[in-house]
Amino acid sequence: MPQEAVGSDDSPVMDASRGLIPTTPLANRSQPRPSAGRAGPVPGSPPALLSQLALAAVRRLHRALGASDVRFELADGNAVGAARSEAVATLRFRDARAPFALALDPDLALGDLYASGRIAIDGSLVDFLSRTDGSGSHGGLAGAAHRLLGAGRRAPASWRQALGRAAGNARHHYDVGNDFYALWLDERMVYTCAYFARPELSLAEAQLAKLDHVCRKLRLQPGQSVLELGCGWGALAIHMASRYGVQVRAFNVSLEQIDWAREQARKEGVASRVEFVLDDYRNAHGHFDALASVGMLEHVGPAHFAELGRVIDRTLAPNGLGFLHTIGRARPQALNRWVATRIFPHAHPPALSEMARIFEPNGFAVLDVENLRLHYERTAQLWLERFQQSWPAIVARVPEQTARAFELYLAGTVAAFRCAWMCLYQVVFARAKSAAVPWTRADLYEAAHGAR
Amino acid sequence: MPQEAVGSDDSPVMDASRGLIPTTPLANRSQPRPSAGRAGPVPGSPPALLSQLALAAVRRLHRALGASDVRFELADGNAVGAARSEAVATLRFRDARAPFALALDPDLALGDLYASGRIAIDGSLVDFLSRTDGSGSHGGLAGAAHRLLGAGRRAPASWRQALGRAAGNARHHYDVGNDFYALWLDERMVYTCAYFARPELSLAEAQLAKLDHVCRKLRLQPGQSVLELGCGWGALAIHMASRYGVQVRAFNVSLEQIDWAREQARKEGVASRVEFVLDDYRNAHGHFDALASVGMLEHVGPAHFAELGRVIDRTLAPNGLGFLHTIGRARPQALNRWVATRIFPHAHPPALSEMARIFEPNGFAVLDVENLRLHYERTAQLWLERFQQSWPAIVARVPEQTARAFELYLAGTVAAFRCAWMCLYQVVFARAKSAAVPWTRADLYEAAHGAR
Repeated sequence: MPQEAVGSDDSPVMDASRGLIPTTPLANRSQPRPSAGRAGPVPGSPPALLSQLALAAVRRLHRALGASDVRFELADGNAVGAARSEAVATLRFRDARAPFALALDPDLALGDLYASGRIAIDGSLVDFLSRTDGSGSHGGLAGAAHRLLGAGRRAPASWRQALGRAAGNARHHYDVGNDFYALWLDERMVYTCAYFARPELSLAEAQLAKLDHVCRKLRLQPGQSVLELGCGWGALAIHMASRYGVQVRAFNVSLEQIDWAREQARKEGVASRVEFVLDDYRNAHGHFDALASVGMLEHVGPAHFAELGRVIDRTLAPNGLGFLHTIGRARPQALNRWVATRIFPHAHPPALSEMARIFEPNGFAVLDVENLRLHYERTAQLWLERFQQSWPAIVARVPEQTARAFELYLAGTVAAFRCAWMCLYQVVFARAKSAAVPWTRADLYEAAHGAR
Repeated sequence: MPQEAVGSDDSPVMDASRGLIPTTPLANRSQPRPSAGRAGPVPGSPPALLSQLALAAVRRLHRALGASDVRFELADGNAVGAARSEAVATLRFRDARAPFALALDPDLALGDLYASGRIAIDGSLVDFLSRTDGSGSHGGLAGAAHRLLGAGRRAPASWRQALGRAAGNARHHYDVGNDFYALWLDERMVYTCAYFARPELSLAEAQLAKLDHVCRKLRLQPGQSVLELGCGWGALAIHMASRYGVQVRAFNVSLEQIDWAREQARKEGVASRVEFVLDDYRNAHGHFDALASVGMLEHVGPAHFAELGRVIDRTLAPNGLGFLHTIGRARPQALNRWVATRIFPHAHPPALSEMARIFEPNGFAVLDVENLRLHYERTAQLWLERFQQSWPAIVARVPEQTARAFELYLAGTVAAFRCAWMCLYQVVFARAKSAAVPWTRADLYEAAHGAR
């Protein structure tokens, strides 16, 4: 892990007390909700002029959004769009300046205004965000919301170069607190796309099915050694060791996650077979029969893909199988600026053409790609439901602004996969010349993990 | 089909009588095989000097090849490399000038000399070609043979631009005669990689399993419409119509193949449900529930991938599935010059990064990639065995030079897939926003087509 990554002040989101640094004061929750209807200031007065400008800005935003079933309500009682009884979602501005903030920098402001409580969204957050599916023009809020977890512009070189700060970036997100994530993830603390072998599986069942799906794709055999790059809270490494009899070395830069993972490995009685290493994946050495990385690639960045490929090249056995699991894109696109600064600094879900930089220059052949987009929509939906159900416990542990930011992020994730702004790629690969590649994929689907 | 493609004189291989145009006279088969041992001309004489130069050239070639178990024998009786009893394969030069031809332009000469009978290869052709797996240096014959179906240099722009002559190129290869192909393909005349759901399947069973594997990947439902781009002898189109109850429109530029396909459709009683169109795929119009292309992409060329993507974009239903099956590469590489001029003019097996040009600019998301490299090795091995078993019937139908060129090509195909110079990609894709994507792939592996 590069030392300069530690304590980087580039786009910091979390402070030492684990809260979003407020960009504006949190809205006063005790202030009365403005009554509906048109009850603004006296016409012609300066407040009235401000009110008219805000209304014009919101009308423009709504028109650009092109979603007639969404309603915007201003703090002065003016409203635009669908009638309250017909709106699938209503965005409420809770102060007079919020409409201007949104209009001036919608990319960043939608999330910030929501997190700080200066806007509220009644009805379904997911429905609201899904309405921004580029059906309107791409200017104004439509473009902004469309890019909220979707079709952003190409990232400027300045922050693409900053992707080197991977360790600090990942730590930023995951060190917010294990107890926080425990409130809405499954019992194994798996924070990546689940695999609903059958649609009716619970979140915990689907995460277990995902762990098995990964292990099967790697065709693990007892006694093999496995290198895991970016191991989260260790669920996959522990599952591999306890169920598949392999020896695992797993890398992660988040101390809180590593501590949790080691404790879990002790509880499961596999501490001697799983080594959790608090270090950057680029410092991995040794030789392994298999290699897995689940949910790390989003934080690596295409500029480092060739380097990742070299790490794999020096650690994977001649006939070893490799496995990558990542949020991705149908084509190269930058992440929305709010997500890329406030939630996952410098994250970049890659397109397959970008992922090719890992494989092609380093002599690997892709054996199998599976796109599990629908499974991530369901996973994120279940996370969001648990998150909202756990709201009192969540705001008791993190600042409300952090909680609201995560809520919006999770809702945006559901929308992004529902609207296909995102993919979920699982890729199996091997050295091009490997003689030990699977004959078919039928073995992945033989009676197991509750699959049909 | 572009008119300029018809009768193009660029790199012609077959003449009107369906034979390779000999670049050198066919060796006189009645000439006595030279005896082994050192029985050359008188030392110091001009023939002796020529003999010494040839021996030096062959020694250099053998050293570059780096395969100690291969033997080279010159026409004058000199020999280099493994003893005859230990050689897995022996290359015999059948005239005094052949060594110089090979040394001067090995890329092209190896195939041409073999086709014309000026060199012979005793033992296994596949073993000989497999020995050229880049273990030696890449100069001389090693490089040439390595590139024979393997790691060629980047194609020069001049012939990459020529990829537009797709129709003429494909016709060149397939119009050599249905009765010729019938001698060594399976009964359905499937000239693409088979799918050995179980390794012990026969060629015919594995081709049938492949057709089902494709239809399953497309999740065909009775009553749907399917567009096929590049349909060969029509086996897939007929199978789709007769077993899956769909309506198919299938494009091909080879008249002989189309005639055969129409006759087969009549015999199978599905002529009303399969329309075979003698035309370039770029002239396909209409709207279809599914799209398939098996073994055409190699002839399209990356320069035309975006155009192919646009053809798919205008013909595929909003929730339709698409399927591409192609020989490919682990990374972008040009085809060996002999194959690219004599066998498949201007063919280019693409890497996944190149195939991305079909999908990414046109809004398609890749759902599933399967690399069936090992299945093509077995397919080509079975073709080669049938080809060699049918030798008398084959040389009764085509000039011996054509037969020998095909034999070398088939052996090179086995070697190329065995040595992993080639991949075989099957790709399922859909519009990125399609809501009708498969939930899992388990349905592909439910009891059927003899799969385990």
